[in-house]
Amino acid sequence: MKNTTEALMWRYATKKFDPSKKLSTEQLDTILEALRLSASSYGLQPWKFIVVTNPEIRAKLRAAAWNQAQITDASQLIVLAVQKNVDAAYVDRFVATVAKVKNVPVDALKGYADMMKGSASSRTPEGVKEWSSRQVYIALGTALTAAAVSGIDACPMEGFDTKQFDDILGLEKLGLESRVLLPVGFRAADDESAQSPKVRFSKGEVVIEVK
Amino acid sequence: MKNTTEALMWRYATKKFDPSKKLSTEQLDTILEALRLSASSYGLQPWKFIVVTNPEIRAKLRAAAWNQAQITDASQLIVLAVQKNVDAAYVDRFVATVAKVKNVPVDALKGYADMMKGSASSRTPEGVKEWSSRQVYIALGTALTAAAVSGIDACPMEGFDTKQFDDILGLEKLGLESRVLLPVGFRAADDESAQSPKVRFSKGEVVIEVK
Repeated sequence: MKNTTEALMWRYATKKFDPSKKLSTEQLDTILEALRLSASSYGLQPWKFIVVTNPEIRAKLRAAAWNQAQITDASQLIVLAVQKNVDAAYVDRFVATVAKVKNVPVDALKGYADMMKGSASSRTPEGVKEWSSRQVYIALGTALTAAAVSGIDACPMEGFDTKQFDDILGLEKLGLESRVLLPVGFRAADDESAQSPKVRFSKGEVVIEVK
Repeated sequence: MKNTTEALMWRYATKKFDPSKKLSTEQLDTILEALRLSASSYGLQPWKFIVVTNPEIRAKLRAAAWNQAQITDASQLIVLAVQKNVDAAYVDRFVATVAKVKNVPVDALKGYADMMKGSASSRTPEGVKEWSSRQVYIALGTALTAAAVSGIDACPMEGFDTKQFDDILGLEKLGLESRVLLPVGFRAADDESAQSPKVRFSKGEVVIEVK
């Protein structure tokens, strides 16, 4: 394990994965647990994570993602999908989980449920989806960092046809929409991107101190 | 250092910070480096991070955030702000940084710059801001994970008055908008939230395998 600064310096958006190198079950679990345990607004977890290993389906997805090789060559392709509608039924499902974990009756959580329903209904449907999408990006940042700390390569990708991905993976009927991609695996020895220096604004350019 | 799964189980949205416990310079740097090194679309880093230690300003901010105690009691309050307009000038500034780091002439990066400008101009101004906001949430997830791995407590917060925060911190004239808050520090010994079991959907509920 690396410390986080070293890990974040080590990571990069991997362009060329070594298709022969696969994550162990434990390594994949590290990534999936990072996604599952990620923070979200109210803890609502408005997401699902689709782990695609099937080669034929990955070939179809690659065609819907500008033919980018990471889609098929990474050990696994994880599609981070957003819950399209965080509605009353969704909140009730979440509250049922809260009640179970905390061992309290659902009725005792009515105020909490009403607060979350109010927060959702104060936004437009598009606004709720955008709010939920932002939460998916917290999970993305969490998983990217967990991967880096554990020496696993990844490549966050927004360049794909959402609609085609949803069709190929049957997400619409599940109330989901594909939001961002996370192929995970190990860099190829000859991935030139790995040698490219990391470009970031300096601390003085992005941090403002109010003392 | 914890492994990431242990760290994410350990972390929680800290409700009550111990105001006497401060981050060391090294610990604060761990968080700021996580934010600074975070992934973003095209590496555009459409953000700034405002580290507020000034007690008078924090008191004003607390009043604009439903009087939540974390705003004043955490070791530092970090405001994650989004670049409101990722326009041609912004892209040019970024490309100048790329040219400097990679030691190539700016002209050699014209195609890359045009591609990013095209991606921004294909969206509405509101769409660009939303796209940028999502990137800020990657930084949030990255920092939350780095904090947890390093045993630092934090509390992601969306519940505040953006406009008032922008006014108090003078963000508008910098082309920034406050997006999400991250107080960092150490939990108070009597924070009851720390004892509350973590509520997450089970792996079977959030992971879909396509084999």
